[in-house]
Amino acid sequence: MKCRACRSKAIIDIPRHNAAFCGTCFDAYLIEQVRKSIEEYQMFSQEDRVLLAVSGGKDSLALWDILERLGYRTIGYHLDLGIDEYSVESTEKTVRFARERNLTLHVEEIAREAGGSVVDISKVTRRPPCSACGVSKRHLFNRAAKTYGCTVLATGHNLDDEASRLLGNILHWQDGYLEKQNPSLPEDEGLIRKVKPLNRLTEKEMATYSFMKGIDYVIRECPMSFDAKQLFYKKVMNEIEKESPGTKQAFYFGFLQRRERFYPETGDKSPPPYICQVCEEPSYSEICSFCRLRLKVTAPPGDESLSRPRTTS
Amino acid sequence: MKCRACRSKAIIDIPRHNAAFCGTCFDAYLIEQVRKSIEEYQMFSQEDRVLLAVSGGKDSLALWDILERLGYRTIGYHLDLGIDEYSVESTEKTVRFARERNLTLHVEEIAREAGGSVVDISKVTRRPPCSACGVSKRHLFNRAAKTYGCTVLATGHNLDDEASRLLGNILHWQDGYLEKQNPSLPEDEGLIRKVKPLNRLTEKEMATYSFMKGIDYVIRECPMSFDAKQLFYKKVMNEIEKESPGTKQAFYFGFLQRRERFYPETGDKSPPPYICQVCEEPSYSEICSFCRLRLKVTAPPGDESLSRPRTTS
Repeated sequence: MKCRACRSKAIIDIPRHNAAFCGTCFDAYLIEQVRKSIEEYQMFSQEDRVLLAVSGGKDSLALWDILERLGYRTIGYHLDLGIDEYSVESTEKTVRFARERNLTLHVEEIAREAGGSVVDISKVTRRPPCSACGVSKRHLFNRAAKTYGCTVLATGHNLDDEASRLLGNILHWQDGYLEKQNPSLPEDEGLIRKVKPLNRLTEKEMATYSFMKGIDYVIRECPMSFDAKQLFYKKVMNEIEKESPGTKQAFYFGFLQRRERFYPETGDKSPPPYICQVCEEPSYSEICSFCRLRLKVTAPPGDESLSRPRTTS
Repeated sequence: MKCRACRSKAIIDIPRHNAAFCGTCFDAYLIEQVRKSIEEYQMFSQEDRVLLAVSGGKDSLALWDILERLGYRTIGYHLDLGIDEYSVESTEKTVRFARERNLTLHVEEIAREAGGSVVDISKVTRRPPCSACGVSKRHLFNRAAKTYGCTVLATGHNLDDEASRLLGNILHWQDGYLEKQNPSLPEDEGLIRKVKPLNRLTEKEMATYSFMKGIDYVIRECPMSFDAKQLFYKKVMNEIEKESPGTKQAFYFGFLQRRERFYPETGDKSPPPYICQVCEEPSYSEICSFCRLRLKVTAPPGDESLSRPRTTS
């Protein structure tokens, strides 16, 4: 197997591009893919301050490394989810990564901010852990971006993440999610711009990059997500990709090309009608989802007053 | 397991409807589903003469049985594909089905109409057998409908067929096919109206109905389709359905609800610009795909003049 670019010995094959690369040319390819996404979707410029959500996994750490190489101004933000050893290891690896490279990192604990770990929240709210985690991350990432003066929030979602999420959303025609499935979601009523610069790169490519760069990341999956639908759709997408290489990319980018046709920006989107009474952020109810969750987790035992969203007259 | 309708012992469970039925209530359910499709998509009325494409498999034979029970005027049409024992058995079972019930059936042989069996055509045209078969069926079904004075062509495609075809089309964003994926395709420039009255019913339900009614059908799959993509997408859809019952139906009907939004009828469709010089049907080239195929199959050895579609100036 020879490198498509320089004909030396290849270290990775990329069937969907019908290509293989040596280490040096793979590095150039990968950087180019990230650069292309940032430009094409106008994710951010050298003037922006980018808050990077860093979990301690390969994607977000590698993205941090890449954005630094490309000369962007980044601030790392790590949320400690309080999921036993998994979170201990995730936080440790993230902190070490930042320290060794002299990067700015802020760490917050979900237990401190939401009143309990993801496990606690899930128990009290009787919602799946991934749901509790999602609500908390959305709120806290956004808050952190504002707190640290950032203009954009970047996450390490890769092509596999995006294609499998798209599959799940399309199979059930989740119009709301499909409308928002965009590698660059513009700023919107108190919510900061959100971008996914790794959307052209697969799991395998990100793992290879991390290995090549000696990035020490958390390998195991989050123990809470063992039954998550997302993992199932990933498995299905991998089967399809194996049968027909290139499908992941064609499916995801084909959707992005048609997204505005299918889900046109009508311009009549009404802003969230409330300001949360607790955190004072724009909200779709009197108290926002995160504050409701937090109040519920921290409520004295037996207090059921926040067990359901309040209805408004 | 009890029948949802009458509480007697159930013989089939239908997880996507969270239901189970006894034989009698299942029969009523199934007939109702077909009736609903015919009405909702205005497929045909009691006045129409329906040409039914009958392969000898469970779906088309059961559909014939159902349409007769519902009092529609049907004419059966069977195309003998010349695929060894498989076609011999298919033709035999179709002929016997019609004879036992005193139904009108016309049988044609692809070898006679196209100049060779599906295997021959595939060899000469160097196209996959399913492609040769598709081109021939489209042409001959349409011709037969006109010949026998029918106003509509019905096929036995079921929910599994439609959902897996949709999956394949969406994964590769085949806009042309997606636009046409409709259980009722209106008459269009020489092409007769085409309908799929079984689009609400699964493989399993059709097999159960056929078994209950003592319909003797060809069980094995077409030996030419063993590597067909369609079977792969069926396998994938079945995996997804098992993980999350109801997905097939939600996916397919969700698409139908959005079809016109995604692929609006613009009204600016131009009719086929040619009349085929051979068969005199509307065509997108001087000689239509079927006649090209036939001329190629019947050409003397060494004659390459029809190996490529002619280009028009």
